[in-house]
Amino acid sequence: MTQYTVGVDFGTLSGRAVVVRTADGAEVATAVHEYRHGAVERTLPATGDPLPPHWALQIPSDWVDVLRTAVPQAVAAAGIDPAEVVGIATDFTACTFLPVLADGTPLSDVLPQEKHAYPKLWKHHAAQGQADRINALAHERGEPWISRYGGKLSSEWQLAKALQVLEEAPDIYARAERFIEATDWIVWQLCGVETRMIGLAGYKGVYQDGAYPSKAFLEALHPGFGDWVSKVDGPLAPLGGRAGSLTEEAAGWTGLAAGIAVAVGNVDAHVTAPAAKAVEPGQLVAIMGTSTCHVMSGAGLADVPGMCGVVQDGIIPGLWGYEAGQSGVGDIFGWYVETLLSGGLTHDELTERAAAQKPGQHGLVALDWHNGNRSVLVDHGLSGVIVGQTLHTRPEEVYRALVEATAFGTRTIIEALTSSGVPVTEFIAAGGLLKNRFLMQVYADVLRRPISVIGSEQGPALGSAMHAAVAAGVYPDIRAAAEAMGKVSRDVYVPDAAAADVYDRLYAEYQTLHDYFGRGANDVLHRLRALREEVSR
Amino acid sequence: MTQYTVGVDFGTLSGRAVVVRTADGAEVATAVHEYRHGAVERTLPATGDPLPPHWALQIPSDWVDVLRTAVPQAVAAAGIDPAEVVGIATDFTACTFLPVLADGTPLSDVLPQEKHAYPKLWKHHAAQGQADRINALAHERGEPWISRYGGKLSSEWQLAKALQVLEEAPDIYARAERFIEATDWIVWQLCGVETRMIGLAGYKGVYQDGAYPSKAFLEALHPGFGDWVSKVDGPLAPLGGRAGSLTEEAAGWTGLAAGIAVAVGNVDAHVTAPAAKAVEPGQLVAIMGTSTCHVMSGAGLADVPGMCGVVQDGIIPGLWGYEAGQSGVGDIFGWYVETLLSGGLTHDELTERAAAQKPGQHGLVALDWHNGNRSVLVDHGLSGVIVGQTLHTRPEEVYRALVEATAFGTRTIIEALTSSGVPVTEFIAAGGLLKNRFLMQVYADVLRRPISVIGSEQGPALGSAMHAAVAAGVYPDIRAAAEAMGKVSRDVYVPDAAAADVYDRLYAEYQTLHDYFGRGANDVLHRLRALREEVSR
Repeated sequence: MTQYTVGVDFGTLSGRAVVVRTADGAEVATAVHEYRHGAVERTLPATGDPLPPHWALQIPSDWVDVLRTAVPQAVAAAGIDPAEVVGIATDFTACTFLPVLADGTPLSDVLPQEKHAYPKLWKHHAAQGQADRINALAHERGEPWISRYGGKLSSEWQLAKALQVLEEAPDIYARAERFIEATDWIVWQLCGVETRMIGLAGYKGVYQDGAYPSKAFLEALHPGFGDWVSKVDGPLAPLGGRAGSLTEEAAGWTGLAAGIAVAVGNVDAHVTAPAAKAVEPGQLVAIMGTSTCHVMSGAGLADVPGMCGVVQDGIIPGLWGYEAGQSGVGDIFGWYVETLLSGGLTHDELTERAAAQKPGQHGLVALDWHNGNRSVLVDHGLSGVIVGQTLHTRPEEVYRALVEATAFGTRTIIEALTSSGVPVTEFIAAGGLLKNRFLMQVYADVLRRPISVIGSEQGPALGSAMHAAVAAGVYPDIRAAAEAMGKVSRDVYVPDAAAADVYDRLYAEYQTLHDYFGRGANDVLHRLRALREEVSR
Repeated sequence: MTQYTVGVDFGTLSGRAVVVRTADGAEVATAVHEYRHGAVERTLPATGDPLPPHWALQIPSDWVDVLRTAVPQAVAAAGIDPAEVVGIATDFTACTFLPVLADGTPLSDVLPQEKHAYPKLWKHHAAQGQADRINALAHERGEPWISRYGGKLSSEWQLAKALQVLEEAPDIYARAERFIEATDWIVWQLCGVETRMIGLAGYKGVYQDGAYPSKAFLEALHPGFGDWVSKVDGPLAPLGGRAGSLTEEAAGWTGLAAGIAVAVGNVDAHVTAPAAKAVEPGQLVAIMGTSTCHVMSGAGLADVPGMCGVVQDGIIPGLWGYEAGQSGVGDIFGWYVETLLSGGLTHDELTERAAAQKPGQHGLVALDWHNGNRSVLVDHGLSGVIVGQTLHTRPEEVYRALVEATAFGTRTIIEALTSSGVPVTEFIAAGGLLKNRFLMQVYADVLRRPISVIGSEQGPALGSAMHAAVAAGVYPDIRAAAEAMGKVSRDVYVPDAAAADVYDRLYAEYQTLHDYFGRGANDVLHRLRALREEVSR
């Protein structure tokens, strides 16, 4: 009997189910379900109350709807017998994090009028003050784990988000019996068992060397925060592990057979690595979309500035998983086209015109911080910069400068890894920006290295299906699954030496501006942000 | 009999004739003539050959056409007897400078295939290399005049433009018996007498303390440049002086009576000062259009950084005339709307939306150097900068930041004057940007001072008509003419204290970025410009 698994990828605005043949990774059928509420950023649906700036929430029932609709649709479209599906696995945006009762009921189901009861989406950026204090205290106390995160935890992660709940809504914090990542929560719904993926606990929850941050640290942050670990300290489970078996209820939602393997939850970016056959040290996978996430495994532990996290067994069992990120990539191009140019020109038009120029011809250099900087500065208070505009500067030139800026941002991350002793041996691109061949060539030229390309347009879902195959026992481990089911094309883009020479010079300018605006020499970006908030009050 | 004079204002793209009643300055009629060739920046009309980057030329016959068409049209529209016109005066863009034969024939009439034979328009920016060497040598030799120009001569002025001709086309240089400002040339055409306005010789020709630069200096620049002064050393004439009488030929062109007074030539910006009744020390007139020119008289001589020039009797007889400038103002807004936004939004739409914001709300600060910086840095190699853009930044916010940046540029100039001992007692606005009330209020808030407004939409032509009245003997001097014919409204815009407080903070950011990018701390703007030129070759 041919075997299949289902990978379910929960994105920011929709969930996607893919049916994959375990023998060779063939993606047999796909179905997508758009979340009814999308990303909740303006008003709370239950009350219509406006949300404060930088908030971003989600609605748990939207996620369950993906299981109810996209999974059976994909299986039906595949034309297979649902009994041929031997396992299911999920991946999610992270840190997307929610307070729940002890039985897993989302607190937002119980207290729909309370904004702090809802899942905070990864891009909820209203906990920067909390993150700043967490980081200051960690350095002051010399917490050993802080260096695993490039010296700074993000405001997007569990500690900052939870501390914001405690400080702004202490009743909600008290009422929450558990806080849990969305991917672990959805697995809980599938198999009735609470598990926590060990890598995710490490990346987003500061679980390092066998422990969460100490009670003393947490109480020094806030007297009421000492019980924090009791709200997250659940059963940790390894990548590709089996969390449990599909419940009757979840079988009813999905149309799959009760009792099949449910894999431990995962992160969308991480699961893409094995989908692109990146299972060895130094193979960096960049998932390039609205933002870019870089995941790579290394043989050992190193302090790399500005990493989102370094976690043992975090991405590939047996290796140290390094994660870095760029907070804005496709989002910056989208903002430029849709908001700043108000749609007067399309991405395709701008790309075509930009591609007709020579590197350096526009006389511009930009900093790609329109959505802050995740790596290597870990600072969401930064903003974009562009220098060199003249009365002759055309929109496609700015567009090109923005594309180049994101490539320089990627190069900054690769150089930080390499100079810290974690060499990058291969650059593998994945994600929606792959379709822009001009952009990919700019990246090859800026990085001065060939670019390999993942062989799937739905890398996360494929990667999840591979983890489901491991959880179901089809393969002994994720390396074997990657060998059979992963897909990559090598050297699809090759650097042009002359262009790379020009980009070396522009990158030197980018570095100087990066450090000037990003490392405190001129803190104008933070002051402008503070002024903006002050006068908007 | 009622007396009239005609003022003719030669702009960048057209010439305007205004008939003015001498008794009270009433502007009785106006006519405008667009130059057939406009500003010649792409190809040489005679050959179709492309011009190099940064070139800008004009065609002398286009100017004569203004005398032939606009002047008689204005007189006809005024419904007066041409015999009632007692004088004519002209003002011009400067430095717009041409090589001629000894009889005044433009060299471009003789050698139309030679690009260096044509008048170089004020915005011809291809002589920056020459300007750099002139300035370096002046400092090296300790030339006493260099401090009168803020330490730097502009590439727009006579010496740089002439040296470019000598170096790139020595035959043209040799063939040119005279070099002359366009305004002096057109006066020559009107009255058959070569004169040179003393202020203009000072501002654009480095005539200071009774002498042009020394032969030793000129020969040190280039061995063939020693004869330079013999090509410009003509009869110097004072402001409001009578250059001569209208010739029969010019009477034929204009329809005016032969023999009437022809005033000494003038500069469009300078002549606007008396038109706005600014004849006392400290009354600064800003002529705000595509670029902004600031003219003010002071009681004494001071070294002010980055002045375009300080000239005794330069603007008002008996005072020291200070001139400063911003190379791009309205041009920057025009570029943003027409080129960068590709016309998707109009100036009016952007202004209306921008005006609805609070100061500081956009979180942006920009440097207004898209066309280089005239004062106080005197550096055409600079370019624009904008910092603070986020994914929420809207086009009207950038527009507002650009408006504010030009106001900060004006404040920089005013502070340079004041801190150098030349206090600014009144800010009087003139020019096309007056019509944007939002912009004017931003200026009042940024400058923290009330703004007076000229009472004419054609200040230069009115000012020229006033000088014609002095030349014709209607008034004994320009002060008397200004009292009778000038027009100004006081305190039309008054600063808002709360807005001014926010702008003080933004201006502090502007200053820091101004010095970082403009004074060599990070010379990225020059390097980007050099790279752009290198790869475009």
